[in-house]
Amino acid sequence: VRTGLRMLILEIVPRSSETNATGHIDHAVLPVWLELAREPVYRLFNPDLSFSGWNTVIRRIEIDFLDQVRYHKQTEIRTGVSEVRNTSFTVTQELWQEGTLAARAATVIVHFDYRSQSKLPISAAVRKRLLELHRD
Amino acid sequence: VRTGLRMLILEIVPRSSETNATGHIDHAVLPVWLELAREPVYRLFNPDLSFSGWNTVIRRIEIDFLDQVRYHKQTEIRTGVSEVRNTSFTVTQELWQEGTLAARAATVIVHFDYRSQSKLPISAAVRKRLLELHRD
Amino acid sequence: VRTGLRMLILEIVPRSSETNATGHIDHAVLPVWLELAREPVYRLFNPDLSFSGWNTVIRRIEIDFLDQVRYHKQTEIRTGVSEVRNTSFTVTQELWQEGTLAARAATVIVHFDYRSQSKLPISAAVRKRLLELHRD
Amino acid sequence: VRTGLRMLILEIVPRSSETNATGHIDHAVLPVWLELAREPVYRLFNPDLSFSGWNTVIRRIEIDFLDQVRYHKQTEIRTGVSEVRNTSFTVTQELWQEGTLAARAATVIVHFDYRSQSKLPISAAVRKRLLELHRD
Repeated sequence: VRTGLRMLILEIVPRSSETNATGHIDHAVLPVWLELAREPVYRLFNPDLSFSGWNTVIRRIEIDFLDQVRYHKQTEIRTGVSEVRNTSFTVTQELWQEGTLAARAATVIVHFDYRSQSKLPISAAVRKRLLELHRD
Repeated sequence: VRTGLRMLILEIVPRSSETNATGHIDHAVLPVWLELAREPVYRLFNPDLSFSGWNTVIRRIEIDFLDQVRYHKQTEIRTGVSEVRNTSFTVTQELWQEGTLAARAATVIVHFDYRSQSKLPISAAVRKRLLELHRD
Repeated sequence: VRTGLRMLILEIVPRSSETNATGHIDHAVLPVWLELAREPVYRLFNPDLSFSGWNTVIRRIEIDFLDQVRYHKQTEIRTGVSEVRNTSFTVTQELWQEGTLAARAATVIVHFDYRSQSKLPISAAVRKRLLELHRD
Repeated sequence: VRTGLRMLILEIVPRSSETNATGHIDHAVLPVWLELAREPVYRLFNPDLSFSGWNTVIRRIEIDFLDQVRYHKQTEIRTGVSEVRNTSFTVTQELWQEGTLAARAATVIVHFDYRSQSKLPISAAVRKRLLELHRD
């Protein structure tokens, strides 16, 4: 039995400005929502989210759009970590609207020093916290 | 005869992501477009638009929405200066879509030192350039 | 003693994508936040906020920017109604961040039939509800 | 010698509102720019880009972020088609800033009937036009 696994859940209230003329949420809004839901992950690296101390960089995003995303529906993003490597890790996320899986995403994030523009190893302490968010 | 008066004209290509589900451009997009059209004005204060040298601050915006703003129409923003004061000035702008005046805006901008958080006088040279954009 | 007066309060969680390179929240984000905070007002006209039944239009916005709006601060929008006319009304709003009044706004909204493109009178029932939000 | 191959090129003028407090363009802006650059592709399916006739849906996006995207740089998106299948095709795009490849993207788009919520075959005529944009 694996215990102690956590999944981060963020409720989103869609904004009317995020719809487009097709009547649904514009696809380009999803990366904004997904980023919001990753905030607790960023805090592991930069506890007060100060911009001067920002030390992660997004290396890749993948999003599968499985259903139209609607304005009026209760919306939830579920966030976990699928893999932790030496200097980077992968966040996997799901967008649910009232029982429907509307999108699935994977984001590769690198621990990064902006000044030297170089990758940094992920410490054992942060690795442990990331692995607590591990989801298959 | 008043000569030498210039008006800045910027053509905008509306983005599908800027529409909302009513089928028109979301009203909250207009401040973004109007800011784009003020870029030549900001260059009078900060020629290379560097963020470290940013030295103006928006004090007030007013926008009158006169008609629905549409995605597919040729769109133009006309920008002039209506008043120059000691430390601030007012930019007046019009949004035209194919012969229809869709919005009118006034923006009060202050010459500002972010470090000391204080207003700065507008130099004679910049004042002269702003007045060349004067429109009644 | 005036009783029964209500003020709508919405807490906003600023998004990192809403900052700009000056380090503060971009001024053009405020209209989006203010619109979110007006949602209970729109529900008086269109209870389920359906787009096919949308029946208000923004006629004018005014925003006074009183202080830089910051990403990390607790943020609250206070919304009331300052005036109700025959076919339109004015919403007044304040943006507070931890004890600082950062912006003040007035928005003129018209009860509107998009099909006929004409103004509609505000019913007695809706007027009563709007006046319950009256603030001087 | 392969002749007749075309690549779509769109110049983008980054907006100050698209930066974030790290000083660079926010990663979530790239899907908006990439969508703009796909407009000529959408016109093959829906020549006047009318919303009532909208007949494509984005099924998947992948973006590799290879370098920080900067506000002040000349920015260009190069768009081609890498694969055309029965009901869907893949658009591949590159974001260049002054000689640097800053991002690479693949987008899977489905020919789609929103009313019946079903996939549609891509006609021979449209297939031919898509293949003219083929890039390895």
